[in-house]
Amino acid sequence: MNRYPHFSFTYQKTSQKHAGRLGVLTTPHGSLKTPAFIFCATKAAIKAVSIKQVEACDTQIILSNTYHLMLQPGSKLVKQMGGLHQFCGWQGPMLTDSGGFQIFSLGHGSVADEIKGTRRYTNRKSTVKISEEGALFTSYIDGKKHLLTPEKSIEIQRDLGADLIVVFDECTPFHVDKSYTASSMRMSHRWALRSLEEFDRGNDGKQALYGIIQGGVYQDLRKESVDFINDQDFFGIAVGGSLGASKEQMYDVVQMVLPRLKPERPVHLLGIGGVRDIFSGVRQGIDTFDCVHPTRIARHGWALVKGATKERINLMNTRFKDDPRPIEENCSCEACVTYSRAYIHHLLKAKEILALQLVTLHNITYMNRLMAAIRQALETDLLDEEEKQWLGNSDDN
Amino acid sequence: MNRYPHFSFTYQKTSQKHAGRLGVLTTPHGSLKTPAFIFCATKAAIKAVSIKQVEACDTQIILSNTYHLMLQPGSKLVKQMGGLHQFCGWQGPMLTDSGGFQIFSLGHGSVADEIKGTRRYTNRKSTVKISEEGALFTSYIDGKKHLLTPEKSIEIQRDLGADLIVVFDECTPFHVDKSYTASSMRMSHRWALRSLEEFDRGNDGKQALYGIIQGGVYQDLRKESVDFINDQDFFGIAVGGSLGASKEQMYDVVQMVLPRLKPERPVHLLGIGGVRDIFSGVRQGIDTFDCVHPTRIARHGWALVKGATKERINLMNTRFKDDPRPIEENCSCEACVTYSRAYIHHLLKAKEILALQLVTLHNITYMNRLMAAIRQALETDLLDEEEKQWLGNSDDN
Repeated sequence: MNRYPHFSFTYQKTSQKHAGRLGVLTTPHGSLKTPAFIFCATKAAIKAVSIKQVEACDTQIILSNTYHLMLQPGSKLVKQMGGLHQFCGWQGPMLTDSGGFQIFSLGHGSVADEIKGTRRYTNRKSTVKISEEGALFTSYIDGKKHLLTPEKSIEIQRDLGADLIVVFDECTPFHVDKSYTASSMRMSHRWALRSLEEFDRGNDGKQALYGIIQGGVYQDLRKESVDFINDQDFFGIAVGGSLGASKEQMYDVVQMVLPRLKPERPVHLLGIGGVRDIFSGVRQGIDTFDCVHPTRIARHGWALVKGATKERINLMNTRFKDDPRPIEENCSCEACVTYSRAYIHHLLKAKEILALQLVTLHNITYMNRLMAAIRQALETDLLDEEEKQWLGNSDDN
Repeated sequence: MNRYPHFSFTYQKTSQKHAGRLGVLTTPHGSLKTPAFIFCATKAAIKAVSIKQVEACDTQIILSNTYHLMLQPGSKLVKQMGGLHQFCGWQGPMLTDSGGFQIFSLGHGSVADEIKGTRRYTNRKSTVKISEEGALFTSYIDGKKHLLTPEKSIEIQRDLGADLIVVFDECTPFHVDKSYTASSMRMSHRWALRSLEEFDRGNDGKQALYGIIQGGVYQDLRKESVDFINDQDFFGIAVGGSLGASKEQMYDVVQMVLPRLKPERPVHLLGIGGVRDIFSGVRQGIDTFDCVHPTRIARHGWALVKGATKERINLMNTRFKDDPRPIEENCSCEACVTYSRAYIHHLLKAKEILALQLVTLHNITYMNRLMAAIRQALETDLLDEEEKQWLGNSDDN
């Protein structure tokens, strides 16, 4: 039985120096070249920009969040409106997550900080109850209780209709002990099987399912998780759970996973979007990344700039008030072609929401340029040289 | 002496039934067909949309506000950045006002309501001091005192560099007596002469100056003002001051002015943007209109719809939550081509700022379609029939 008749992933390794690979991932809504970055359209919209603008930035793929959409407007309504593609106007490949990450993050307080192990201790009471059946949580909109199970998550993702969908998991926090991480991982494995069974009950060939590797920062658990997920017929693999407390630990965790994974499946690294981290992940064999980072920082005036210290500049800074240059000289985005830093600085100061649109468009374009440059550098086996171009330390920008 | 060598206005009357006219107004940044609607880019940006999107809506002309720009980012900075066109990326014809209207409105509390005579009594203390020299007011940004004079307003507008600029006037409130209105009008006449003198001192042929007709709701004062302004060499004429407390009174005030005006000059009606009012003004011979209304209501979820009761629908309304239709079936704007009412309703509910962009784009497109339809109807002398199409009372929308 071919579970995924309308999907394919082909790749080639291009270097002896690292495990990076060039690929093509094909879905019923078209193909994307990997390595690729997936932009977050959390509530079926990339914040501050229209989907036509997102397309015009050479975007290949976007994702929406099951958790947000199940609460508002509801997956049945999205289905009734023709599915997520029709609803939000995006014609290309699309992914939805399982809802687990957001439920978890509401329960534990902070979101990405927790996954990345950087959260400090808080004693906020968890508002989520996790059992073998699933996760019981309270809606942030109206306070209603919802039970999300593996079956329910897949059903909702089916209604939403994205191309790539993900098994329901408990997104294990960093600050728990190994024994919790182990039992949480094994429950997530059982949930993965239930997700696959539910997937099969409704499989019409239009969606492909990703499994998730858990196991926290523990080598033996990661190995156990890889071996378990390898044995199941998932189309793709996502590396999830806690990735550790530092970039070094993240590298180590990914390294525990990637070499053991079946190579023929596309691999997604959940929630990572820094330039250095992307180069690092690409070298380890990661095919796709996602993160709210590029679009979120845009709404605070941070523009991504090749070669700038910390990868970015803050256009709110007074030094830009009379800077006639575009954000980046060689960027083809609408913001850079049309406007100066001085103008965007003015818009930010004047609290004009156009500023958010422009910096978001720039950051999306930057990320797509980055991924295109990475693919090019994989082809020519010049990834180190390419990385130096992006990770400069120029304060001149 | 030709004060306005690079500007022209030609027109033709097309009907025996009314004074409506079809025209072409040419500026150094291109021509516009009249009657036309001028969109408000208050702080050098039309709120929530990019200038490329504004262009794509078939927009002919925009305006910015001297008052806002003199305070932030300052006219000298805009000049240093190459002027308003370069700064905000708009290539077409552009107008700036004199700053008088906003200074006045800050001093007296409400803005448009006062001009339109609908404001209720408030005892808010005026923060503006008006003298023969000019208007002394306090910045809303940092509390600094600023003195705006006719000379200063023209200098600022020269630095901003819009094509069409306007004399500095006191925008006389509705709720003052006739004697105040008369002496305010006469001071505004003296300010108009000072504006013209300052205009001449820096005239490089790239700008054209509009005079303003004052006189409130009083026939003899409006006549006096028309006769005075007619005698001065302004390129265009704006009908300003209080237009009365009702649509009927506004009609009467415009009628006191238009038949006496020199016909060869383009006539602008300040701050009016309702569909019914535009048809009424066009019949009286008005060539251009401006108002924040279409873009402001967009940001509250109100979409302009041809034939709808009150000219609009509120997409926040629950009845749109599963409406798969576009805002308007035959509209070519990005919002209508790409998205359903249900989607925009979802965005509004979810507080996604993309909603503001989409409804703004629609309302701009609607206004441009309206003005194109009016020009077409003037050509075929079917203005009454056209008006009925727009002012329906369909709740079905």
